[in-house]
Amino acid sequence: MPRLPWRRLVNPYRPVEILSADQIEMIHGASLRILAEVGMEVLGDRAIDILARAGANIERSSRRVRLEPGMVEATIASAPGEFRVHARNPARHVDIGGRSLVFTSVGGPAFVTDLDRGRRPGNVADFVDYVRLIGALDIVHMEAGGPLEPTDLPVPTRHLEMYRILATNLDKTWQCLGFGRVPVDDALEVVALARGVDRDVLVREPSLMTIINSNSPLRLDGPMSEGLIEMAIHGQPIVATPFTLAGAMSPATIAGALAQQNAEALFMVVLTQLARVGAPVVYGGFTSNVDMRTGSPAFGTPEYVKAAFATGQLARRYGLPFRSSNVTGSNVVDAQAAYESEMAVWGAVMGGVNLLYQGAGWLEGGLTASYEKLILDAEILQMMSEVLQPLVIDESEIGLEAIADVGPGGHFFGTAHTLERFEHAFYRPILSDWRNFETWQDDGSRTAAVRANGIWKQLLAECEPPAMDPPIAEAIDAFVRRRTTEIQASDRA
Amino acid sequence: MPRLPWRRLVNPYRPVEILSADQIEMIHGASLRILAEVGMEVLGDRAIDILARAGANIERSSRRVRLEPGMVEATIASAPGEFRVHARNPARHVDIGGRSLVFTSVGGPAFVTDLDRGRRPGNVADFVDYVRLIGALDIVHMEAGGPLEPTDLPVPTRHLEMYRILATNLDKTWQCLGFGRVPVDDALEVVALARGVDRDVLVREPSLMTIINSNSPLRLDGPMSEGLIEMAIHGQPIVATPFTLAGAMSPATIAGALAQQNAEALFMVVLTQLARVGAPVVYGGFTSNVDMRTGSPAFGTPEYVKAAFATGQLARRYGLPFRSSNVTGSNVVDAQAAYESEMAVWGAVMGGVNLLYQGAGWLEGGLTASYEKLILDAEILQMMSEVLQPLVIDESEIGLEAIADVGPGGHFFGTAHTLERFEHAFYRPILSDWRNFETWQDDGSRTAAVRANGIWKQLLAECEPPAMDPPIAEAIDAFVRRRTTEIQASDRA
Repeated sequence: MPRLPWRRLVNPYRPVEILSADQIEMIHGASLRILAEVGMEVLGDRAIDILARAGANIERSSRRVRLEPGMVEATIASAPGEFRVHARNPARHVDIGGRSLVFTSVGGPAFVTDLDRGRRPGNVADFVDYVRLIGALDIVHMEAGGPLEPTDLPVPTRHLEMYRILATNLDKTWQCLGFGRVPVDDALEVVALARGVDRDVLVREPSLMTIINSNSPLRLDGPMSEGLIEMAIHGQPIVATPFTLAGAMSPATIAGALAQQNAEALFMVVLTQLARVGAPVVYGGFTSNVDMRTGSPAFGTPEYVKAAFATGQLARRYGLPFRSSNVTGSNVVDAQAAYESEMAVWGAVMGGVNLLYQGAGWLEGGLTASYEKLILDAEILQMMSEVLQPLVIDESEIGLEAIADVGPGGHFFGTAHTLERFEHAFYRPILSDWRNFETWQDDGSRTAAVRANGIWKQLLAECEPPAMDPPIAEAIDAFVRRRTTEIQASDRA
Repeated sequence: MPRLPWRRLVNPYRPVEILSADQIEMIHGASLRILAEVGMEVLGDRAIDILARAGANIERSSRRVRLEPGMVEATIASAPGEFRVHARNPARHVDIGGRSLVFTSVGGPAFVTDLDRGRRPGNVADFVDYVRLIGALDIVHMEAGGPLEPTDLPVPTRHLEMYRILATNLDKTWQCLGFGRVPVDDALEVVALARGVDRDVLVREPSLMTIINSNSPLRLDGPMSEGLIEMAIHGQPIVATPFTLAGAMSPATIAGALAQQNAEALFMVVLTQLARVGAPVVYGGFTSNVDMRTGSPAFGTPEYVKAAFATGQLARRYGLPFRSSNVTGSNVVDAQAAYESEMAVWGAVMGGVNLLYQGAGWLEGGLTASYEKLILDAEILQMMSEVLQPLVIDESEIGLEAIADVGPGGHFFGTAHTLERFEHAFYRPILSDWRNFETWQDDGSRTAAVRANGIWKQLLAECEPPAMDPPIAEAIDAFVRRRTTEIQASDRA
């Protein structure tokens, strides 16, 4: 099945500027005031201790942590602007920051759906299939912590089986779960085994990533703060992402949501640097808005796009990589799913995004991983990756001689200039159907969603997970078995 | 039915630059060489005469016209960079050029389709309904020469009935047909009557527009050249648009297609200025590519986007307004229709487009006007128009006090800051469905296309064409009757 080969992406375009320099400083100033005057509620003890040692103003009874502006600015300065995340296949390393652009697959949905079987709870059989499809789609540079929740696995040991499947079926980077110390430490062990390196190499060569969300407004919960610290201590990057849904978890204005997002993001960046100076961290923007009449979250809206533009400017102000996402509120793989995703992807890319989460597969505001949406998004991302390739303008490409030879009223189908370029002249889509109406109708009048259904099934049937040395696979299996037994034993105790 | 009110759009963003200054000059130079060395075939006698008088090199036997580079550069310099097109309702005037952005409806399809009645030849009953919907959608600033072909009307007098319907059902600007002197002159009369002004006022106040296509490669046909000249003589703007489909009507490279497009566009611009110095003219880009395996035209592709970026730079190099289009090759209002349209619209807007043709309704590569696509595109255009609105960043919008009052873990639903903004906080969609999965499923699991079907029917039932003074409507009727009789008589003669 034709698809674009793996390649690293660099965004050649100057990011859109929606904010003036003064407006950026106004948001920056407001967020520093929020941190100094309102503060964050921090539920993790280790985080409170680290912040206390760094001189934060801590109100122990309410777990409220306030930070002085000078301390925030001094502390975040050590976060790197660019870093690399290492895969077990060195050709699949990814660079985060600068002009680089990395696409991840969907992460975290509770449900999974396809046109044949409908919507159902996430389960381990779908988890394996979906991960293999992610592996087969080279436009997806990085996996994002499990494309769906395998709810049929026991909770305490679920992460171990997820990591085993991810590590053995993918040779690209994959992400771990960030809610607590245990899932991070187990992931570090699995990824060290998969890469065949010692744990201390991982500090110099970050190989895992995870999202850390604040519970907006202004709360960092215990497991998330533990995950953040554990990742940072081990030199692994986190993506610090407030979920500032304007009108619900933040003010009903993009200005207010951005100020609050910035406060929460900077707070998490501060904590990474206190845990380990120079720990890699990404500025995550997830500001969207609710439907004011119903309270439903909305995605891929104009407000979402403008927040992405602004967030890119804020991240660059701090010299941090910028994360955004490919999102939609649609319940079905239809025109709405496509236009909301396109809005989100264009907003992110034109805003200079470095790391596009939820790049492929997200449906229903993130509640569901869709097989057909995975194919739709792969097409959207492939097309965007082609938009980023430079135009070649030279005598050979212009082909003045061909234009003169063909002359007025002729056609270029059979010219030497055309035939030389036959194979690779233009992007070849995976999903788009360009046949005329009659041919399309005779072939069953299939919509893009129906065609996507056929495509993922063919891709799944054809794809071969990348080889892994048997001793490495056995070591991962053994580790997962041992840890599973340990956790089960401690749960029984 | 909620929708955005009429407003003029200004694009605040710096256009994307895909070409370096050197690359722009390389394309410019190549196109001047094409005009000097290969030339255009011109089938219209009046055009040949005008070009001959201006000193063009004319090979009468082959109707080949070659232009010296110096003559091209000197002649195009008189074309204005910005101008206004006047509607019968002064609130509906549109400005073309500069930072202004104007959206038109679909123009020209032979077929019409909707989910109830399927695909059928264009006809006058659908023409009326479709024009009324265009009138009801304020996001469509300008009509584009008939949204579908009323094939049940006799060809020789069809344009008269089209103009009557357009002039009486719309108070916004509408476009005429450009293939020949007669349809232009008749349109001038109708629009003068509709605006209640003399014909000579129209010269100072352009009120009609039309697309003039070259027959790529390098041919300008007789009726099109006549239409171009007639429009220019009367001071009415044309949109000079080569149809350079890379791999078919131009080389199988974007570089070659752009050089040829530029040559053909400049040729048409030259002809407008020779017909009348200072005549308004728009630089039209319609470079796309074929599917190399089948020869099918493709739209909304990565190549289409990059050509739009580059065309914007070329148009600005010449100080001309830039036209692009909202296009798709999909045969159905599905995810493909949405993602190709979004690609085209984002490519155009980020490329600094001034005039977006085919903005709402185009399906099947332009063969069909779709009622449901009209609604889908209205949503896409409304969302884009909101992306162009500036963010307000001030103390009131940031709402520090609300953030402090709500505090960690609270919510903003009921705060005064939110309630004050309840009505107008965020864009309110016409098509998007943000309800949760269960609610959406209980309500019939309707896709965006199915919802669009309900929306256009409700809109059509509710909309009232804008009032026209009865004497004006009678004068237009009388003119159309008289001219119809004249044409019928001369056809019989």
